[in-house]
Amino acid sequence: SSKSSKNLPVSSVTSIIDGLKRLYNQKLKPLEVTYRFNDFGSPLLTNSEFDAKPMVLLLGQYSTGKTTFINHLLKTSYPGSHIGPEPTTDRFVVVMSGTDERSIPGNTIAVQADMPFSGLTTFGTSFLSKFECSQMKHPLLEHITFVDSPGVLSGDKQRTERAYDFTGVISWFAAKCDLILLLFDPHKLDVSDEFKRVISSLRGNDDKVRVVLNKADQVDTQQLMRVYGALMWSLGKVLNTPEVMRVYIGSFHGKPINDAVGGPIGKELFEKEQDDLLSDLKDIPKKACDRRINEFVKRARAAKIHAYIISHLKKEMPSMIGKTKAQQKLIANLDREFGKVQREFHLSPGDFPNVEHYRESLSHYNIDKFEKLKPKLIQAVDDMLGYDIPNLLKNFRNPYE
Amino acid sequence: SSKSSKNLPVSSVTSIIDGLKRLYNQKLKPLEVTYRFNDFGSPLLTNSEFDAKPMVLLLGQYSTGKTTFINHLLKTSYPGSHIGPEPTTDRFVVVMSGTDERSIPGNTIAVQADMPFSGLTTFGTSFLSKFECSQMKHPLLEHITFVDSPGVLSGDKQRTERAYDFTGVISWFAAKCDLILLLFDPHKLDVSDEFKRVISSLRGNDDKVRVVLNKADQVDTQQLMRVYGALMWSLGKVLNTPEVMRVYIGSFHGKPINDAVGGPIGKELFEKEQDDLLSDLKDIPKKACDRRINEFVKRARAAKIHAYIISHLKKEMPSMIGKTKAQQKLIANLDREFGKVQREFHLSPGDFPNVEHYRESLSHYNIDKFEKLKPKLIQAVDDMLGYDIPNLLKNFRNPYE
Ligand SMILES: Nc1ncnc2c1ncn2[C@@H]1O[C@H](COP(=O)(O)OP(=O)(O)OP(=O)(O)O)[C@@H](O)[C@H]1O
Ligand SMILES: Nc1ncnc2c1ncn2[C@@H]1O[C@H](COP(=O)(O)OP(=O)(O)OP(=O)(O)O)[C@@H](O)[C@H]1O
Ligand SMILES: [Mg+2]
Ligand SMILES: [Mg+2]
Repeated sequence: SSKSSKNLPVSSVTSIIDGLKRLYNQKLKPLEVTYRFNDFGSPLLTNSEFDAKPMVLLLGQYSTGKTTFINHLLKTSYPGSHIGPEPTTDRFVVVMSGTDERSIPGNTIAVQADMPFSGLTTFGTSFLSKFECSQMKHPLLEHITFVDSPGVLSGDKQRTERAYDFTGVISWFAAKCDLILLLFDPHKLDVSDEFKRVISSLRGNDDKVRVVLNKADQVDTQQLMRVYGALMWSLGKVLNTPEVMRVYIGSFHGKPINDAVGGPIGKELFEKEQDDLLSDLKDIPKKACDRRINEFVKRARAAKIHAYIISHLKKEMPSMIGKTKAQQKLIANLDREFGKVQREFHLSPGDFPNVEHYRESLSHYNIDKFEKLKPKLIQAVDDMLGYDIPNLLKNFRNPYE
Repeated sequence: SSKSSKNLPVSSVTSIIDGLKRLYNQKLKPLEVTYRFNDFGSPLLTNSEFDAKPMVLLLGQYSTGKTTFINHLLKTSYPGSHIGPEPTTDRFVVVMSGTDERSIPGNTIAVQADMPFSGLTTFGTSFLSKFECSQMKHPLLEHITFVDSPGVLSGDKQRTERAYDFTGVISWFAAKCDLILLLFDPHKLDVSDEFKRVISSLRGNDDKVRVVLNKADQVDTQQLMRVYGALMWSLGKVLNTPEVMRVYIGSFHGKPINDAVGGPIGKELFEKEQDDLLSDLKDIPKKACDRRINEFVKRARAAKIHAYIISHLKKEMPSMIGKTKAQQKLIANLDREFGKVQREFHLSPGDFPNVEHYRESLSHYNIDKFEKLKPKLIQAVDDMLGYDIPNLLKNFRNPYE
């Protein structure tokens, strides 16, 4: 039938992710390109973004043990890693699988089409010179990519020493990552204003955040309880979600746990917590697939709404004279036009983009040059949402399992 | 000199508290009575309020171990105490020193001039029938009075079963108390909406609040950490102070700590925490004296401002006709009149009472019947603040030390 000819034949697909990649290119991308969805929000997706492994981002004030944590999981030092009591890691480092052991500078990674980091070019060369990719052959890196980050400094230092938009970069990684580990050190507990801003920049990705109270064997039990309590007290305020964040209490490095301070129960607790964290890390790939499907579907819905809005604005333009004035009026009353689109296509107001941002993006365009509504493009996306994606889910197991 | 004749001779005073009591009756009360300060805010102080021992209020959801806690500190059961797994204590019980062991019903206590509880009559007889005083001879009760309370129930039960203003009563006790212990049980951690309201009603007395995570030996260490973290997370939001509340983690009953579950470190931790809590309780009397001086001085300042406002309003009234209209105008523009008083006497706007409440209280009066400014009454309070109180502090040690 004509219907099935439009559908993605499952036999040609190798996995859910492969299926999404093909669906994107065949069915969603044409709609996005036609109505310039990329200029109004998210850049077009690249194949490398579909192929990217699940990512774990490490964040924390300096010297909380982020680099040590990654090396501990890898049971070896990643190429170019530095560990020390003073601020050591001075850049964002993506630690990923590769055939050779090597470091690639940020400017090079950003232009590589087979890497999902081209979006970072918007943060400028002063950022790219503080960005690096560290590759090595490692069984764990077959499944997970880690992102090590420079420690958050206290206010003034932070501002003077970073020549780029630090929280912006963190937001970018937070959106792409599958898990965000916030590391704390019981000796440096106070959550600096800078770190609060960093945590706030994770908004919208709260469900990915886990907290690690590291080096817990460095203080006695009573101190540990104070420190832990104070941490929860202030995190509860900063994160502002009713669900309590999971905190792993332990000491995540290669050495045996120091039971001179915490005692045997400390050791037992920390070992249990370490096991829990490891099994959470093992779950990431499984969850990453669900997350990607979910985000893909959300993106498709947003792209459809965008197409409805753009084609509606085009339709409202006069055919002959008074175009400039009409465009000004449409932009000025954009919220009213949004309302019309909502009613015409029975859409929920909560799914609509932010009016202010949209108005700003629109102002760079000549509305008259936009495309009319093309029902076939919409139909392709509806088919994808209603048939192809459910079909993929029925025919393939989670590729990461 | 005429000046010294007005001052309180230190030789006639037996303690700081005795001095405050006499100063109140000789110097502050006359000002309060003249300008009806009691009708606009705080009732007149009674001698029994000065004589009252420092009070510790226990609050918590039902069965968290409040009654057990008091009996544990007393090393005996207070008269009329009930302990059990179901909601047991069904009333507010003031546990205080007395020559005989006995319980006195609320209606009787409320009318006793030598007891500081007459203010509770405003909560009506349905409250008074759920109020009791338990007296016994006990060395600890020589220094501290305990207030046991009925456990907070979950929403609906709370509303249907209490025929009086529960949070109002708790606010009343919170203001009079020197320490407020909030008890939690790791098995019943979830802070119900009702309990949130109770905690909110402690506002303004946040510095008196301490948290007890009781029965901590009933769960294993990993569970305890979860429970404790969740508690701090939600308390941080409810209490909304940047300072972390002190939490005592332990098991506060007469029996030995259950180290089958928590293990030896649990036992050690809980014993340290118990010691810390006991020494905090020992500090209460010392701190109570500072608190009372502080509150007394605050009250004196508020009474002076009240006198300035009242006498100013009186002065603004016409001497012959148009009194009703003038009164209406003054009340309508009360904020402007407050401004005039501020400027005339160089007072800080932050020290002024709430305009709305004041307007409401004023509406019951005939402003014309108020007293003019009596400088001698003001002078007496100024002398008290500037000379008598500092002199008391110089000549007496803290009576509770
Ligand atoms: N679990 C641990 N227990 C005790 N010491 C630790 C632990 N983890 C790391 N350290 C020590 O803490 C210091 C900082 O470690 P590391 O360099 O890994 O931190 P970092 O968070 O990567 O710091 P930066 O932000 O400066 O890169 C080092 O001296 C390291 O040996
Ligand atoms: N530290 C403790 N460890 C274990 N069990 C305890 C502890 N303290 C109290 N209990 C038990 O918990 C139950 C409730 O105790 P209790 O009656 O003292 O609580 P309460 O807070 O006064 O309750 P209510 O609000 O109903 O008056 C009783 O069965 C008591 O034996
Ligand atoms: Mg580092
Ligand atoms: Mg009780």
